[in-house]
Amino acid sequence: MQDPSTLTPAAARALFRSGKTRPTAGWASGFTQANLIAVPEDWAYDVLLFCQRNPKPCPVLDVSEPGDPTTTLAPGADLRSDLPLYRVWENGQLAGEVSDVSGLWRTDLVAFSIGCSFTFETALAEAGIPLRHVDQGRNVAMYVTNVECRPAGRLHGPMVVSMRQIPADRVEDATRISAAMPAVHGAPVHVGDPARLGIRDLGRPDFGDPVDAEPGDVPMFWACGVTPQAALMASRPPFAITHAPGHMFVSDRRDSDYRVV
Amino acid sequence: MQDPSTLTPAAARALFRSGKTRPTAGWASGFTQANLIAVPEDWAYDVLLFCQRNPKPCPVLDVSEPGDPTTTLAPGADLRSDLPLYRVWENGQLAGEVSDVSGLWRTDLVAFSIGCSFTFETALAEAGIPLRHVDQGRNVAMYVTNVECRPAGRLHGPMVVSMRQIPADRVEDATRISAAMPAVHGAPVHVGDPARLGIRDLGRPDFGDPVDAEPGDVPMFWACGVTPQAALMASRPPFAITHAPGHMFVSDRRDSDYRVV
Repeated sequence: MQDPSTLTPAAARALFRSGKTRPTAGWASGFTQANLIAVPEDWAYDVLLFCQRNPKPCPVLDVSEPGDPTTTLAPGADLRSDLPLYRVWENGQLAGEVSDVSGLWRTDLVAFSIGCSFTFETALAEAGIPLRHVDQGRNVAMYVTNVECRPAGRLHGPMVVSMRQIPADRVEDATRISAAMPAVHGAPVHVGDPARLGIRDLGRPDFGDPVDAEPGDVPMFWACGVTPQAALMASRPPFAITHAPGHMFVSDRRDSDYRVV
Repeated sequence: MQDPSTLTPAAARALFRSGKTRPTAGWASGFTQANLIAVPEDWAYDVLLFCQRNPKPCPVLDVSEPGDPTTTLAPGADLRSDLPLYRVWENGQLAGEVSDVSGLWRTDLVAFSIGCSFTFETALAEAGIPLRHVDQGRNVAMYVTNVECRPAGRLHGPMVVSMRQIPADRVEDATRISAAMPAVHGAPVHVGDPARLGIRDLGRPDFGDPVDAEPGDVPMFWACGVTPQAALMASRPPFAITHAPGHMFVSDRRDSDYRVV
Protein backbone atom coordinates (compact mmCIF):
# COMPACT_ATOMS: atom_id res chain seq x y z
CA MET A 1 0.00 0.00 0.00
CA GLN A 2 1.03 3.60 -0.58
CA ASP A 3 2.59 5.41 2.38
CA PRO A 4 -0.57 6.57 4.21
CA SER A 5 0.92 10.00 4.94
CA THR A 6 0.97 10.79 1.21
CA LEU A 7 -2.66 9.83 0.54
CA THR A 8 -5.16 12.50 -0.32
CA PRO A 9 -8.02 12.83 2.19
CA ALA A 10 -10.44 11.49 -0.43
CA ALA A 11 -8.24 8.46 -1.06
CA ALA A 12 -7.94 7.77 2.67
CA ARG A 13 -11.73 8.01 3.08
CA ALA A 14 -12.24 5.68 0.11
CA LEU A 15 -10.00 3.07 1.76
CA PHE A 16 -11.93 3.31 5.01
CA ARG A 17 -15.25 3.21 3.13
CA SER A 18 -14.14 -0.04 1.55
CA GLY A 19 -13.62 -1.52 5.01
CA LYS A 20 -10.02 -0.81 6.04
CA THR A 21 -9.74 -0.18 9.81
CA ARG A 22 -6.62 1.61 11.01
CA PRO A 23 -5.78 4.41 13.45
CA THR A 24 -5.36 7.55 11.36
CA ALA A 25 -2.34 9.17 13.05
CA GLY A 26 0.00 10.28 10.29
CA TRP A 27 -2.51 9.66 7.48
CA ALA A 28 -3.00 12.28 4.75
CA SER A 29 -0.36 14.50 6.26
CA GLY A 30 -1.28 18.17 6.38
CA PHE A 31 -5.03 17.58 6.40
CA THR A 32 -7.22 18.04 9.45
CA GLN A 33 -8.69 15.03 11.20
CA ALA A 34 -11.82 15.22 13.35
CA ASN A 35 -13.50 13.36 16.19
CA LEU A 36 -17.13 12.38 15.57
CA ILE A 37 -20.02 12.36 17.99
CA ALA A 38 -23.59 11.95 16.73
CA VAL A 39 -26.53 12.19 19.13
CA PRO A 40 -30.32 12.41 18.80
CA GLU A 41 -31.59 15.90 18.09
CA ASP A 42 -33.03 16.35 21.59
CA TRP A 43 -29.51 15.97 23.01
CA ALA A 44 -27.87 18.31 20.49
CA TYR A 45 -28.17 21.50 22.55
CA ASP A 46 -26.60 19.81 25.58
CA VAL A 47 -23.69 18.56 23.45
CA LEU A 48 -23.15 21.92 21.76
CA LEU A 49 -23.30 23.76 25.10
CA PHE A 50 -20.95 21.19 26.68
CA CYS A 51 -18.51 21.91 23.87
CA GLN A 52 -18.86 25.69 24.30
CA ARG A 53 -18.19 25.34 28.03
CA ASN A 54 -15.21 23.03 27.50
CA PRO A 55 -13.56 24.44 24.40
CA LYS A 56 -10.11 22.96 25.00
CA PRO A 57 -11.22 19.30 24.86
CA CYS A 58 -14.25 19.93 22.61
CA PRO A 59 -13.51 22.48 19.85
CA VAL A 60 -16.43 22.21 17.40
CA LEU A 61 -15.41 22.32 13.74
CA ASP A 62 -18.82 21.50 12.22
CA VAL A 63 -22.39 20.54 13.17
CA SER A 64 -24.70 18.76 10.74
CA GLU A 65 -28.41 19.17 10.19
CA PRO A 66 -30.51 16.41 11.83
CA GLY A 67 -30.22 13.18 9.86
CA ASP A 68 -27.69 14.62 7.43
CA PRO A 69 -24.50 12.51 7.22
CA THR A 70 -22.54 15.13 5.28
CA THR A 71 -20.14 17.77 6.57
CA THR A 72 -18.81 21.09 5.31
CA LEU A 73 -15.32 19.83 6.22
CA ALA A 74 -15.29 17.54 3.16
CA PRO A 75 -17.99 17.98 0.51
CA GLY A 76 -19.03 14.59 -0.87
CA ALA A 77 -17.88 12.62 2.16
CA ASP A 78 -20.30 10.41 4.11
CA LEU A 79 -19.90 10.40 7.88
CA ARG A 80 -21.64 7.00 8.07
CA SER A 81 -18.98 5.09 6.14
CA ASP A 82 -15.85 7.21 5.68
CA LEU A 83 -14.27 6.74 9.11
CA PRO A 84 -12.18 3.60 9.69
CA LEU A 85 -13.97 2.50 12.85
CA TYR A 86 -17.03 3.57 14.83
CA ARG A 87 -18.40 3.01 18.28
CA VAL A 88 -22.12 2.58 18.89
CA TRP A 89 -23.47 3.58 22.30
CA GLU A 90 -26.74 2.67 24.00
CA ASN A 91 -27.57 4.26 27.34
CA GLY A 92 -23.91 5.10 27.88
CA GLN A 93 -22.73 1.54 27.27
CA LEU A 94 -20.52 0.54 24.36
CA ALA A 95 -22.84 -1.61 22.23
CA GLY A 96 -20.29 -2.38 19.53
CA GLU A 97 -17.49 -1.32 17.22
CA VAL A 98 -18.22 -1.41 13.50
CA SER A 99 -16.59 -0.08 10.35
CA ASP A 100 -19.82 1.27 8.84
CA VAL A 101 -22.89 2.77 10.52
CA SER A 102 -25.05 3.38 7.44
CA GLY A 103 -27.65 0.92 8.72
CA LEU A 104 -27.69 2.50 12.17
CA TRP A 105 -27.91 6.17 11.20
CA ARG A 106 -31.18 7.78 12.29
CA THR A 107 -33.09 10.71 10.84
CA ASP A 108 -32.77 12.59 14.14
CA LEU A 109 -28.99 12.22 14.53
CA VAL A 110 -26.96 15.44 14.72
CA ALA A 111 -23.25 14.91 13.94
CA PHE A 112 -20.59 16.99 15.67
CA SER A 113 -17.09 17.12 14.20
CA ILE A 114 -14.63 17.97 16.97
CA GLY A 115 -11.05 19.16 16.48
CA CYS A 116 -8.24 16.65 16.94
CA SER A 117 -4.70 17.04 18.24
CA PHE A 118 -3.37 15.21 15.19
CA THR A 119 -3.94 18.58 13.50
CA PHE A 120 -1.02 20.24 15.24
CA GLU A 121 1.21 17.18 14.82
CA THR A 122 2.02 18.33 11.29
CA ALA A 123 3.28 21.62 12.69
CA LEU A 124 5.25 19.83 15.42
CA ALA A 125 6.84 17.52 12.87
CA GLU A 126 7.70 20.41 10.56
CA ALA A 127 9.52 22.01 13.50
CA GLY A 128 11.55 18.82 13.89
CA ILE A 129 9.79 17.67 17.07
CA PRO A 130 9.62 13.85 17.11
CA LEU A 131 6.24 12.11 17.40
CA ARG A 132 6.97 8.90 19.29
CA HIS A 133 3.62 7.21 18.58
CA VAL A 134 3.96 7.78 14.84
CA ASP A 135 7.59 6.57 14.86
CA GLN A 136 6.53 3.50 16.85
CA GLY A 137 3.56 2.81 14.56
CA ARG A 138 1.06 3.13 17.37
CA ASN A 139 -2.11 5.02 18.15
CA VAL A 140 -1.60 8.03 20.45
CA ALA A 141 -2.04 7.28 24.18
CA MET A 142 -5.14 8.79 25.82
CA TYR A 143 -6.11 8.95 29.49
CA VAL A 144 -9.21 9.79 31.52
CA THR A 145 -8.23 12.49 34.04
CA ASN A 146 -9.54 13.57 37.43
CA VAL A 147 -10.44 16.99 35.95
CA GLU A 148 -14.19 17.35 35.66
CA CYS A 149 -15.54 19.22 32.65
CA ARG A 150 -18.02 22.01 33.24
CA PRO A 151 -21.41 20.29 32.84
CA ALA A 152 -24.13 21.37 30.38
CA GLY A 153 -27.68 20.18 30.81
CA ARG A 154 -27.60 16.41 31.10
CA LEU A 155 -23.99 16.16 29.92
CA HIS A 156 -21.12 15.85 32.38
CA GLY A 157 -17.92 13.87 32.63
CA PRO A 158 -14.14 13.97 33.03
CA MET A 159 -11.65 15.52 30.62
CA VAL A 160 -9.70 13.06 28.49
CA VAL A 161 -6.16 13.96 27.42
CA SER A 162 -3.75 12.74 24.78
CA MET A 163 -0.11 12.38 25.83
CA ARG A 164 3.05 12.91 23.83
CA GLN A 165 6.57 12.25 25.04
CA ILE A 166 8.55 15.30 23.94
CA PRO A 167 12.29 15.92 24.34
CA ALA A 168 12.75 18.33 27.26
CA ASP A 169 14.45 20.96 25.13
CA ARG A 170 11.46 21.05 22.73
CA VAL A 171 8.68 21.41 25.33
CA GLU A 172 8.58 25.17 24.93
CA ASP A 173 8.40 24.91 21.13
CA ALA A 174 5.62 22.30 21.30
CA THR A 175 3.68 24.53 23.67
CA ARG A 176 4.04 27.60 21.48
CA ILE A 177 3.20 25.78 18.24
CA SER A 178 0.07 24.10 19.61
CA ALA A 179 -1.07 27.28 21.40
CA ALA A 180 -1.33 28.95 17.99
CA MET A 181 -4.00 26.41 17.00
CA PRO A 182 -6.77 26.95 19.58
CA ALA A 183 -9.45 25.32 17.38
CA VAL A 184 -7.67 21.98 17.70
CA HIS A 185 -7.07 21.89 21.47
CA GLY A 186 -4.43 24.63 21.64
CA ALA A 187 -1.75 24.69 24.33
CA PRO A 188 -1.23 21.67 26.59
CA VAL A 189 -3.32 21.44 29.77
CA HIS A 190 -0.39 20.04 31.73
CA VAL A 191 3.29 19.19 31.32
CA GLY A 192 5.34 16.82 33.42
CA ASP A 193 3.50 14.98 36.18
CA PRO A 194 0.82 12.44 35.23
CA ALA A 195 -0.30 12.24 38.87
CA ARG A 196 -1.43 15.86 38.74
CA LEU A 197 -4.15 14.73 36.32
CA GLY A 198 -4.92 11.59 38.32
CA ILE A 199 -3.11 9.34 35.83
CA ARG A 200 -1.50 6.45 37.73
CA ASP A 201 0.35 4.58 35.00
CA LEU A 202 1.38 6.02 31.63
CA GLY A 203 1.89 2.45 30.46
CA ARG A 204 -1.83 1.72 30.72
CA PRO A 205 -3.75 4.31 28.69
CA ASP A 206 -7.56 4.30 28.78
CA PHE A 207 -7.71 4.65 25.00
CA GLY A 208 -5.12 4.08 22.27
CA ASP A 209 -1.74 2.42 22.75
CA PRO A 210 1.04 2.78 25.32
CA VAL A 211 3.91 4.75 23.77
CA ASP A 212 7.53 4.39 24.84
CA ALA A 213 9.51 7.40 26.00
CA GLU A 214 13.05 8.09 24.90
CA PRO A 215 15.64 9.22 27.46
CA GLY A 216 15.13 12.89 28.29
CA ASP A 217 11.49 12.96 27.20
CA VAL A 218 8.85 14.85 29.18
CA PRO A 219 5.18 13.81 29.00
CA MET A 220 2.96 16.59 27.64
CA PHE A 221 -0.81 16.38 27.96
CA TRP A 222 -3.30 17.98 25.62
CA ALA A 223 -7.09 18.11 26.01
CA CYS A 224 -8.54 15.40 23.76
CA GLY A 225 -11.58 15.12 21.53
CA VAL A 226 -12.41 11.74 23.07
CA THR A 227 -13.76 13.77 26.02
CA PRO A 228 -17.32 13.74 24.59
CA GLN A 229 -17.17 9.91 24.61
CA ALA A 230 -16.33 9.97 28.32
CA ALA A 231 -19.30 12.31 28.76
CA LEU A 232 -21.54 9.84 26.90
CA MET A 233 -20.39 7.07 29.23
CA ALA A 234 -21.13 9.26 32.28
CA SER A 235 -24.36 10.85 31.04
CA ARG A 236 -26.03 7.91 29.29
CA PRO A 237 -28.01 9.30 26.37
CA PRO A 238 -30.23 6.58 24.87
CA PHE A 239 -28.22 6.38 21.63
CA ALA A 240 -25.04 7.77 20.13
CA ILE A 241 -22.47 7.03 17.47
CA THR A 242 -18.83 8.13 17.73
CA HIS A 243 -15.52 7.38 16.04
CA ALA A 244 -13.36 4.77 17.76
CA PRO A 245 -10.51 6.57 19.56
CA GLY A 246 -7.68 7.37 17.17
CA HIS A 247 -9.78 6.33 14.15
CA MET A 248 -10.67 9.79 12.94
CA PHE A 249 -12.52 11.45 10.10
CA VAL A 250 -9.94 12.70 7.57
CA SER A 251 -11.26 16.01 6.25
CA ASP A 252 -10.36 18.16 3.28
CA ARG A 253 -9.38 21.09 5.50
CA ARG A 254 -5.72 21.87 5.82
CA ASP A 255 -4.12 21.83 9.26
CA SER A 256 -2.73 25.27 8.53
CA ASP A 257 -6.31 26.63 8.27
CA TYR A 258 -6.54 26.30 12.03
CA ARG A 259 -3.39 28.26 12.86
CA VAL A 260 -4.39 31.75 14.03
CA VAL A 261 -0.95 33.40 13.97
CA MET B 1 -16.31 61.52 37.78
CA GLN B 2 -13.23 59.31 37.90
CA ASP B 3 -11.53 58.56 34.57
CA PRO B 4 -13.66 55.63 33.33
CA SER B 5 -10.61 53.73 32.09
CA THR B 6 -9.34 53.37 35.66
CA LEU B 7 -12.60 52.03 37.12
CA THR B 8 -12.77 48.45 38.29
CA PRO B 9 -15.32 46.33 36.40
CA ALA B 10 -17.45 46.12 39.54
CA ALA B 11 -17.42 49.90 39.92
CA ALA B 12 -18.37 50.36 36.25
CA ARG B 13 -21.25 47.90 36.61
CA ALA B 14 -22.42 49.68 39.79
CA LEU B 15 -22.56 52.98 37.91
CA PHE B 16 -24.59 51.40 35.10
CA ARG B 17 -26.84 49.65 37.62
CA SER B 18 -27.59 53.03 39.16
CA GLY B 19 -28.78 54.29 35.78
CA LYS B 20 -25.77 55.79 33.99
CA THR B 21 -25.97 55.19 30.22
CA ARG B 22 -22.70 55.52 28.27
CA PRO B 23 -20.88 53.61 25.52
CA THR B 24 -18.25 51.53 27.27
CA ALA B 25 -15.28 51.89 24.88
CA GLY B 26 -12.26 52.60 27.04
CA TRP B 27 -14.00 51.79 30.33
CA ALA B 28 -12.25 49.57 32.93
CA SER B 29 -9.20 49.26 30.75
CA GLY B 30 -7.76 45.76 30.54
CA PHE B 31 -11.02 44.00 31.34
CA THR B 32 -13.06 42.13 28.78
CA GLN B 33 -16.37 43.53 27.57
CA ALA B 34 -19.12 41.38 26.10
CA ASN B 35 -22.12 41.68 23.83
CA LEU B 36 -25.40 40.36 25.22
CA ILE B 37 -28.15 38.48 23.43
CA ALA B 38 -30.91 36.77 25.42
CA VAL B 39 -33.55 34.66 23.67
CA PRO B 40 -36.30 32.26 24.76
CA GLU B 41 -35.03 28.75 25.46
CA ASP B 42 -36.60 27.29 22.31
CA TRP B 43 -34.38 29.60 20.22
CA ALA B 44 -31.20 28.88 22.20
CA TYR B 45 -29.97 26.01 20.02
CA ASP B 46 -30.37 28.07 16.87
CA VAL B 47 -28.42 30.95 18.43
CA LEU B 48 -25.64 28.70 19.74
CA LEU B 49 -25.36 26.92 16.39
CA PHE B 50 -25.39 30.27 14.54
CA CYS B 51 -22.48 31.34 16.73
CA GLN B 52 -20.59 28.08 16.12
CA ARG B 53 -21.04 28.52 12.39
CA ASN B 54 -19.99 32.15 12.46
CA PRO B 55 -17.22 32.22 15.05
CA LYS B 56 -15.56 35.41 13.85
CA PRO B 57 -18.57 37.69 14.46
CA CYS B 58 -20.10 35.54 17.24
CA PRO B 59 -17.45 34.13 19.60
CA VAL B 60 -19.37 32.77 22.60
CA LEU B 61 -17.77 33.55 25.97
CA ASP B 62 -20.60 32.27 28.21
CA VAL B 63 -24.13 30.88 28.07
CA SER B 64 -26.50 31.09 31.03
CA GLU B 65 -29.01 28.57 32.30
CA PRO B 66 -32.61 29.42 31.31
CA GLY B 67 -33.92 32.31 33.42
CA ASP B 68 -30.60 32.83 35.17
CA PRO B 69 -29.33 36.42 34.85
CA THR B 70 -25.85 35.64 36.18
CA THR B 71 -22.67 34.86 34.25
CA THR B 72 -19.41 33.08 34.98
CA LEU B 73 -17.64 36.10 33.47
CA ALA B 74 -18.35 38.16 36.61
CA PRO B 75 -19.65 36.38 39.70
CA GLY B 76 -22.18 38.56 41.51
CA ALA B 77 -23.09 40.62 38.46
CA ASP B 78 -26.68 40.82 37.20
CA LEU B 79 -27.14 40.81 33.43
CA ARG B 80 -30.56 42.48 33.84
CA SER B 81 -29.23 45.72 35.31
CA ASP B 82 -25.45 45.93 34.98
CA LEU B 83 -25.21 47.00 31.35
CA PRO B 84 -25.56 50.70 30.56
CA LEU B 85 -28.26 50.32 27.92
CA TYR B 86 -30.41 47.51 26.53
CA ARG B 87 -32.51 46.92 23.48
CA VAL B 88 -35.79 45.00 23.68
CA TRP B 89 -36.93 43.17 20.54
CA GLU B 90 -40.35 41.83 19.61
CA ASN B 91 -40.72 39.83 16.39
CA GLY B 92 -37.49 41.31 15.08
CA GLN B 93 -38.58 44.89 15.68
CA LEU B 94 -36.88 47.20 18.14
CA ALA B 95 -39.51 47.70 20.85
CA GLY B 96 -37.45 50.01 23.02
CA GLU B 97 -34.16 50.99 24.63
CA VAL B 98 -34.03 50.89 28.42
CA SER B 99 -31.31 50.99 31.08
CA ASP B 100 -32.71 48.09 33.11
CA VAL B 101 -34.55 44.94 31.99
CA SER B 102 -35.23 43.40 35.40
CA GLY B 103 -39.00 43.74 34.87
CA LEU B 104 -38.78 42.20 31.37
CA TRP B 105 -36.56 39.19 32.10
CA ARG B 106 -38.36 35.88 31.60
CA THR B 107 -37.82 32.49 33.21
CA ASP B 108 -37.11 30.97 29.80
CA LEU B 109 -34.49 33.48 28.65
CA VAL B 110 -31.03 32.10 27.84
CA ALA B 111 -28.31 34.79 27.88
CA PHE B 112 -25.35 34.60 25.50
CA SER B 113 -22.26 36.67 26.21
CA ILE B 114 -20.40 37.27 22.97
CA GLY B 115 -16.81 38.48 22.63
CA CYS B 116 -16.20 42.13 21.76
CA SER B 117 -13.49 43.82 19.76
CA PHE B 118 -12.93 46.30 22.59
CA THR B 119 -11.01 43.39 24.14
CA PHE B 120 -8.11 43.67 21.72
CA GLU B 121 -8.11 47.47 21.89
CA THR B 122 -6.09 47.28 25.09
CA ALA B 123 -3.43 45.29 23.24
CA LEU B 124 -3.53 47.71 20.29
CA ALA B 125 -3.14 50.70 22.62
CA GLU B 126 -0.27 49.04 24.49
CA ALA B 127 1.47 48.63 21.13
CA GLY B 128 1.10 52.36 20.55
CA ILE B 129 -1.62 52.03 17.90
CA PRO B 130 -4.02 54.99 18.15
CA LEU B 131 -7.75 54.34 18.68
CA ARG B 132 -9.46 57.23 16.90
CA HIS B 133 -12.92 56.64 18.39
CA VAL B 134 -11.57 56.65 21.95
CA ASP B 135 -9.47 59.77 21.26
CA GLN B 136 -12.53 61.46 19.75
CA GLY B 137 -14.77 60.42 22.66
CA ARG B 138 -17.10 58.47 20.39
CA ASN B 139 -18.61 55.02 20.14
CA VAL B 140 -16.90 52.75 17.60
CA ALA B 141 -18.44 52.83 14.08
CA MET B 142 -20.30 49.65 13.02
CA TYR B 143 -21.70 48.71 9.63
CA VAL B 144 -24.02 46.05 8.21
CA THR B 145 -22.17 44.31 5.37
CA ASN B 146 -23.23 42.42 2.24
CA VAL B 147 -21.59 39.26 3.64
CA GLU B 148 -24.24 36.75 4.66
CA CYS B 149 -23.56 34.67 7.74
CA ARG B 150 -23.94 30.91 7.50
CA PRO B 151 -27.53 30.29 8.68
CA ALA B 152 -28.48 28.00 11.56
CA GLY B 153 -32.05 26.78 11.97
CA ARG B 154 -34.30 29.84 11.91
CA LEU B 155 -31.40 32.27 12.34
CA HIS B 156 -29.86 34.06 9.39
CA GLY B 157 -28.58 37.53 8.62
CA PRO B 158 -25.67 39.67 7.45
CA MET B 159 -22.32 40.08 9.19
CA VAL B 160 -21.83 43.34 11.04
CA VAL B 161 -18.32 44.81 11.30
CA SER B 162 -16.64 47.40 13.47
CA MET B 163 -14.25 49.78 11.73
CA ARG B 164 -11.07 51.37 13.02
CA GLN B 165 -8.97 53.91 11.16
CA ILE B 166 -5.39 52.71 11.62
CA PRO B 167 -2.19 54.42 10.41
CA ALA B 168 -1.01 52.55 7.31
CA ASP B 169 2.31 51.60 8.85
CA ARG B 170 0.53 49.93 11.81
CA VAL B 171 -1.95 47.80 9.81
CA GLU B 172 0.31 44.76 9.96
CA ASP B 173 0.78 45.11 13.73
CA ALA B 174 -2.96 45.55 14.30
CA THR B 175 -3.64 42.43 12.24
CA ARG B 176 -1.09 40.34 14.10
CA ILE B 177 -2.17 41.52 17.54
CA SER B 178 -5.88 40.92 16.96
CA ALA B 179 -5.23 37.58 15.25
CA ALA B 180 -3.73 36.30 18.50
CA MET B 181 -7.12 36.82 20.19
CA PRO B 182 -9.49 34.57 18.20
CA ALA B 183 -12.08 34.43 21.00
CA VAL B 184 -12.76 38.14 20.56
CA HIS B 185 -13.11 38.33 16.75
CA GLY B 186 -9.46 37.69 15.88
CA ALA B 187 -7.90 39.04 12.70
CA PRO B 188 -9.74 41.62 10.59
CA VAL B 189 -12.16 40.35 7.92
CA HIS B 190 -11.13 43.08 5.51
CA VAL B 191 -8.67 45.97 5.20
CA GLY B 192 -8.92 48.94 2.90
CA ASP B 193 -11.99 49.13 0.71
CA PRO B 194 -15.40 49.65 2.36
CA ALA B 195 -17.14 48.88 -0.96
CA ARG B 196 -15.83 45.31 -0.85
CA LEU B 197 -18.12 44.78 2.14
CA GLY B 198 -21.00 46.70 0.58
CA ILE B 199 -20.43 49.75 2.79
CA ARG B 200 -21.28 52.89 0.83
CA ASP B 201 -20.39 55.67 3.21
CA LEU B 202 -18.06 55.36 6.20
CA GLY B 203 -19.55 58.61 7.48
CA ARG B 204 -22.92 56.96 8.02
CA PRO B 205 -22.46 53.89 10.25
CA ASP B 206 -25.44 51.63 10.93
CA PHE B 207 -24.58 51.52 14.63
CA GLY B 208 -22.36 53.70 16.81
CA ASP B 209 -20.81 56.99 15.75
CA PRO B 210 -18.95 58.19 12.67
CA VAL B 211 -15.25 58.42 13.45
CA ASP B 212 -12.86 60.80 11.70
CA ALA B 213 -9.78 59.47 9.93
CA GLU B 214 -6.39 61.11 10.25
CA PRO B 215 -4.22 61.58 7.13
CA GLY B 216 -2.61 58.25 6.17
CA ASP B 217 -5.18 56.12 7.99
CA VAL B 218 -6.50 52.91 6.46
CA PRO B 219 -9.93 51.57 7.47
CA MET B 220 -9.71 48.11 9.05
CA PHE B 221 -12.86 46.02 9.52
CA TRP B 222 -13.35 43.40 12.21
CA ALA B 223 -16.30 41.02 12.59
CA CYS B 224 -18.58 42.49 15.26
CA GLY B 225 -20.66 41.06 18.09
CA VAL B 226 -23.62 43.14 16.97
CA THR B 227 -24.05 40.54 14.22
CA PRO B 228 -26.57 38.55 16.34
CA GLN B 229 -28.73 41.69 16.55
CA ALA B 230 -28.81 41.89 12.78
CA ALA B 231 -29.81 38.22 12.78
CA LEU B 232 -32.64 38.98 15.21
CA MET B 233 -33.88 41.73 12.89
CA ALA B 234 -33.77 39.33 9.93
CA SER B 235 -35.06 36.21 11.68
CA ARG B 236 -37.74 37.70 13.95
CA PRO B 237 -37.87 35.60 17.09
CA PRO B 238 -40.91 36.56 19.21
CA PHE B 239 -38.82 38.13 21.97
CA ALA B 240 -35.21 39.00 22.69
CA ILE B 241 -33.11 41.32 24.82
CA THR B 242 -29.69 42.60 23.74
CA HIS B 243 -27.22 45.27 24.76
CA ALA B 244 -27.45 48.54 22.85
CA PRO B 245 -24.53 48.67 20.38
CA GLY B 246 -21.37 49.89 22.09
CA HIS B 247 -22.99 49.65 25.53
CA MET B 248 -21.37 46.43 26.66
CA PHE B 249 -21.25 44.21 29.70
CA VAL B 250 -17.97 44.91 31.55
CA SER B 251 -16.77 41.55 32.87
CA ASP B 252 -14.17 40.59 35.45
CA ARG B 253 -12.13 38.67 32.90
CA ARG B 254 -8.87 40.20 31.76
CA ASP B 255 -8.36 40.96 28.08
CA SER B 256 -5.08 39.06 28.26
CA ASP B 257 -7.01 35.87 29.18
CA TYR B 258 -8.14 35.74 25.55
CA ARG B 259 -4.70 35.99 23.98
CA VAL B 260 -3.63 32.53 22.80
CA VAL B 261 0.05 33.24 22.03
